Amino acid sequence: NSLNITPLNPAANDLARLERDVAQLKQGHGIEKMQYNHSTGTIEGLVHFPPAKVIILEGLHPLSTPVLRTLLDFSFFVDPSPDVKREWKMKRDMGTRGYTEQEVRKEMAAREPDYLAYVAPQKAYAQGIIGISFSRFGRELGWKENIYRVSLSMAPLPELHENVLMTFDLGAVLTAHTRPYSVGYMPVMNEGHHMGTLELDGGFPCDAAHELFARLREKTGIDPSALIPTCPLLTPTDIMQLIVCWRIISHRHMLD
Amino acid sequence: NSLNITPLNPAANDLARLERDVAQLKQGHGIEKMQYNHSTGTIEGLVHFPPAKVIILEGLHPLSTPVLRTLLDFSFFVDPSPDVKREWKMKRDMGTRGYTEQEVRKEMAAREPDYLAYVAPQKAYAQGIIGISFSRFGRELGWKENIYRVSLSMAPLPELHENVLMTFDLGAVLTAHTRPYSVGYMPVMNEGHHMGTLELDGGFPCDAAHELFARLREKTGIDPSALIPTCPLLTPTDIMQLIVCWRIISHRHMLD
Repeated sequence: NSLNITPLNPAANDLARLERDVAQLKQGHGIEKMQYNHSTGTIEGLVHFPPAKVIILEGLHPLSTPVLRTLLDFSFFVDPSPDVKREWKMKRDMGTRGYTEQEVRKEMAAREPDYLAYVAPQKAYAQGIIGISFSRFGRELGWKENIYRVSLSMAPLPELHENVLMTFDLGAVLTAHTRPYSVGYMPVMNEGHHMGTLELDGGFPCDAAHELFARLREKTGIDPSALIPTCPLLTPTDIMQLIVCWRIISHRHMLD
Repeated sequence: NSLNITPLNPAANDLARLERDVAQLKQGHGIEKMQYNHSTGTIEGLVHFPPAKVIILEGLHPLSTPVLRTLLDFSFFVDPSPDVKREWKMKRDMGTRGYTEQEVRKEMAAREPDYLAYVAPQKAYAQGIIGISFSRFGRELGWKENIYRVSLSMAPLPELHENVLMTFDLGAVLTAHTRPYSVGYMPVMNEGHHMGTLELDGGFPCDAAHELFARLREKTGIDPSALIPTCPLLTPTDIMQLIVCWRIISHRHMLD
């Protein structure tokens, strides 16, 4: 861009304006949002953005200032493993963007210092961390079916007045009428904070998340299964998204 | 013993008599069973053993002859990892039996050739294999709480007209009100045969196996939870035992 810095550098972003915008939205006021064009790398003017009950702020710097960290009620840091990140970038940039493998590697290497300086430190402030690595059941499952080994680490909630069961049919296991999968839970430490990590890998039947679907439908009026094109196959990413939605909606209800 | 061979050698056992006994029991006749005294290593005469709907043949050579392999309707090979086996033997023989560590190691090494020659080959004929290794959540969990990483590999059943769900509460995961655990299923090959492997590790709440308890109670009239002293904590071994019982009872019903 015109400053000759990478978009990972906060100087390429008007974070003071972002802070004001988020504060306005939290107070229930609409904002005039800067519209960025990813193809040309320029700001294309302002669009009106109305307030809502749930606002999702997605980007490279949502936790990079103390004000933003205070404003956000809940935050996730998405942390794909280096080899997964490399594959995603290769597939995208060598495909639609027509770069050579060498060009992609060179650009990734050039961005790494800014990633470490400006993006990675936000992980310490996130209340949830989503790890993504290649499936233990085959690396190719990632690209072919969006099946990765996905972990969700969060600080334990003090309480949650609802149970949502995931189910696994032992009959399907004994008859081998199920795809390989794994589920695991364990406590971990992240930057000095106690967290619990849920890890999912492989392919799951939609029935496994039946209660999660029902709970979200009950809370939102929308049937989540209609939004998952691969049903009856659920990927770890699908299930984690449902859990994150449930977590956010439960949190929103608590604020009311 | 008097033949100066290890008990792992089939020559130390009257397998022809065992074949006759199993055949008699399968035909619904009682037998006069040889009574072996583990402390003295001698046969102490015969005891009457009546026939039953389910007969469990447990020992070192149940699959070592073609006749036995034909007679048994269902078979499991228990296959603890070498380090787990060593710990079990150390704890037992250095404890109640008063051996030194060196004596135990020496005896284990002396038995190894016969184990490989006579016991291990039966694994290829077993319809199920139970693997036991130290928990990924801590080796000490094995000795302290009987929590191991336990796998059950079986040839897939052609059909099974029942579903039994295991359940996991996502609410307990988000509030960290649950012990570390993992569950996984994947297809594997064993000696050229297709099998499915279910692997469990960690501690499970009894609720997780609620349907399995109910199914077994319904089929046997006995409440399995009364037989598990650690309830509400279920170990992987507990759950695998319940699954094996369910598998055997379902098979028995099919034979009727």
